[in-house]
Amino acid sequence: MTCLKHTLPNGLQLIAECYSDAYTLGIGFFVRAGSRDEPAELAGVSHFLEHMAFKGTPTMTAEEVNLAFDRIGAAYNAFTGEDATVYFAAVLPEFQEAACRLLAELMRPVFPPDEFDREKQVILEEIRMYLDEPPFGADDLCRAKFFAGHPLGRSVLGSTASVEAIGVEQMRAYHRRRYAPNNMVLAAAGRVDFDALVRQAEAFCGGWESWDEDRMLHPLEPAYGFHLSPKPSASHEYLIQMSEGPSGYSKERFAAQLLAAVVGDDSGSRLFWEFVDSGLADSASLAFSEHEDAGVFTLTLSCAEELFSDNLERLRKLIRGLETDGITEEELQRAKRKIFTRTVLAGERPRNRLFSLGLEWLLFQSYQSVQEKLRLVEAVTLEDVNRLIQRYPLSCHATVAAGSWEAIQ
Amino acid sequence: MTCLKHTLPNGLQLIAECYSDAYTLGIGFFVRAGSRDEPAELAGVSHFLEHMAFKGTPTMTAEEVNLAFDRIGAAYNAFTGEDATVYFAAVLPEFQEAACRLLAELMRPVFPPDEFDREKQVILEEIRMYLDEPPFGADDLCRAKFFAGHPLGRSVLGSTASVEAIGVEQMRAYHRRRYAPNNMVLAAAGRVDFDALVRQAEAFCGGWESWDEDRMLHPLEPAYGFHLSPKPSASHEYLIQMSEGPSGYSKERFAAQLLAAVVGDDSGSRLFWEFVDSGLADSASLAFSEHEDAGVFTLTLSCAEELFSDNLERLRKLIRGLETDGITEEELQRAKRKIFTRTVLAGERPRNRLFSLGLEWLLFQSYQSVQEKLRLVEAVTLEDVNRLIQRYPLSCHATVAAGSWEAIQ
Repeated sequence: MTCLKHTLPNGLQLIAECYSDAYTLGIGFFVRAGSRDEPAELAGVSHFLEHMAFKGTPTMTAEEVNLAFDRIGAAYNAFTGEDATVYFAAVLPEFQEAACRLLAELMRPVFPPDEFDREKQVILEEIRMYLDEPPFGADDLCRAKFFAGHPLGRSVLGSTASVEAIGVEQMRAYHRRRYAPNNMVLAAAGRVDFDALVRQAEAFCGGWESWDEDRMLHPLEPAYGFHLSPKPSASHEYLIQMSEGPSGYSKERFAAQLLAAVVGDDSGSRLFWEFVDSGLADSASLAFSEHEDAGVFTLTLSCAEELFSDNLERLRKLIRGLETDGITEEELQRAKRKIFTRTVLAGERPRNRLFSLGLEWLLFQSYQSVQEKLRLVEAVTLEDVNRLIQRYPLSCHATVAAGSWEAIQ
Repeated sequence: MTCLKHTLPNGLQLIAECYSDAYTLGIGFFVRAGSRDEPAELAGVSHFLEHMAFKGTPTMTAEEVNLAFDRIGAAYNAFTGEDATVYFAAVLPEFQEAACRLLAELMRPVFPPDEFDREKQVILEEIRMYLDEPPFGADDLCRAKFFAGHPLGRSVLGSTASVEAIGVEQMRAYHRRRYAPNNMVLAAAGRVDFDALVRQAEAFCGGWESWDEDRMLHPLEPAYGFHLSPKPSASHEYLIQMSEGPSGYSKERFAAQLLAAVVGDDSGSRLFWEFVDSGLADSASLAFSEHEDAGVFTLTLSCAEELFSDNLERLRKLIRGLETDGITEEELQRAKRKIFTRTVLAGERPRNRLFSLGLEWLLFQSYQSVQEKLRLVEAVTLEDVNRLIQRYPLSCHATVAAGSWEAIQ
């Protein structure tokens, strides 16, 4: 495996992990445009724009784009987050050029007005469904409360009101600023012909004009507190709890990943034994996610109404115990083995490597091979994790409880 | 890649695809025990048993099993279907023996009474949640109506009443019959040491006693008709429609797979253009699944209440058009490319190969490499697909519509 990089004169960065023994390649554009970049009145525009990228380009209609992807048998999709929008395709090696050309087309959408109006309805429907399903918007609410005015507190979907108000010209202006080539990475992983990729990027993206716009980073000043989100028809209670963690630039992020596995992994974690194995909750987990200027631990728990207040008390005790005694060496070793296996498993699939490759390069200008990641995880000590627990106490959190009122009160 | 096979004296069959360049291996037991094997009064016992497999073995408690999997960093899980129950783990190569030993432990559960009672509550909760979420049990209902008394019509979860009534001794007897070594396959894929695997299987499974029990196969006599499943609180309407297709033994199954892609793939299919791209439905798809004595096409559609009856009419027209004119060569070629890419992508991941390897060997005593599968897909002609459309008309179906009553009536 070799990792190769190149930058076009207009600022578009290329990065690729080339494996001669892979059978496919993943390729994608990683755009530094997410909900955190949106002015309040355009909340949801990044995600809406992602949909519109498939709805017509300078040379192709929506239908032609779709047919062209199908013709090369591509497995393709896109997603939008707080920090980035990603467009990707997995194809057989003979279709590298076609996939690159098509993805480049998507980066220059034309926003046909009729498609715009129709897609807006699709998004509004998506928002309605999101609010209709567990945890009934509690995650967005918790994010807003915890980040307290910080751009990372914004909802990726936006609100019904904000999406309804977005106009084509506003989206066009947002696109011009955020989809400039110097604000993107073109990444590829797998059976990549890198020399050809450079030529293809020059041909398809070389004419894009750069734009002088950066992202505003802000120190996080989280707000703690307990909030209720009533949903009378809910059959279960849902808890979302957010706490601060190290940012994606921090050396402590591997310790944070390990802590999340010890405390809240799907199986064999403290939350698992306390709540899931015992049957007190149907799910309980802790996840860590990293951004440029902040990291966040998200704890979720869902259970029957009548167990909710007891579970809250148990959770408080569990976190108190963690902060008093730390974790054990045995827990750390088990968590390391899990992360090892997952990292290697993810590395086997070009499509998965593509995501970490592209996002880490886009957000942190950082590249780590699977082997380097394994070394960094291995190097974390018990002291590192226990220091992290003190530095970023899980007992300081914003919490949202969604469900019928009775149990919560 | 080499495919190796071996059978132990007690009838346990081993099959493995060994790749010297893989970084992990997937390993799993495939048991010919599913909802189709259950007497009516034990509906749900296969799935309940799958849960109990993790709850105590002759030498380990539930907690020890969980810790032991974690200690080797295994990504492990299990699932139950109509035809089979599968237990699997993905591990780094140095943990092949430990993973094999642990999975073998799971195959001989001891069913501790307290764990049994506790797990029963977990399953009952799972059934409640299943009925609470879209499509609100409509899939199980449609399956029961369509298969009309055929064993494949049974629900994997079972009902609240049937699960409540299951006793430990009944589960033990079911286990003795269905978990006999001659009714299982031990499969592995990836960086497998096959000679070692044979020795490990002999050591861990060689003492299991075989049992003279087979599966009853039945010709399918599907029942057609339209059924309503009222859910007053639903915000959307859900349609499930089942039609007959070729069985997993049939040469026509690749044509059926291609037809499902042409008609109902996620993107670029006839259903996609008619309903999803146009915004008339939020999802619409057609899937094909194969069993030993039957195949089934399952069409699903969900949309806003006010569009439901119009959509039903559109769907009828779409199927009529398909049966009158067939599909086009261009559609077939696009579907082939998609299936190619997916097959190759799945083949890149040992864990995915494991599932088709184990299930196809267990159910059909058939082995096909990724290359052979690609050849068989390539060989399907337009005539094959259009003949299939006539032979298995999608217009003959059992349908369940779930949602609030108003739109349906």
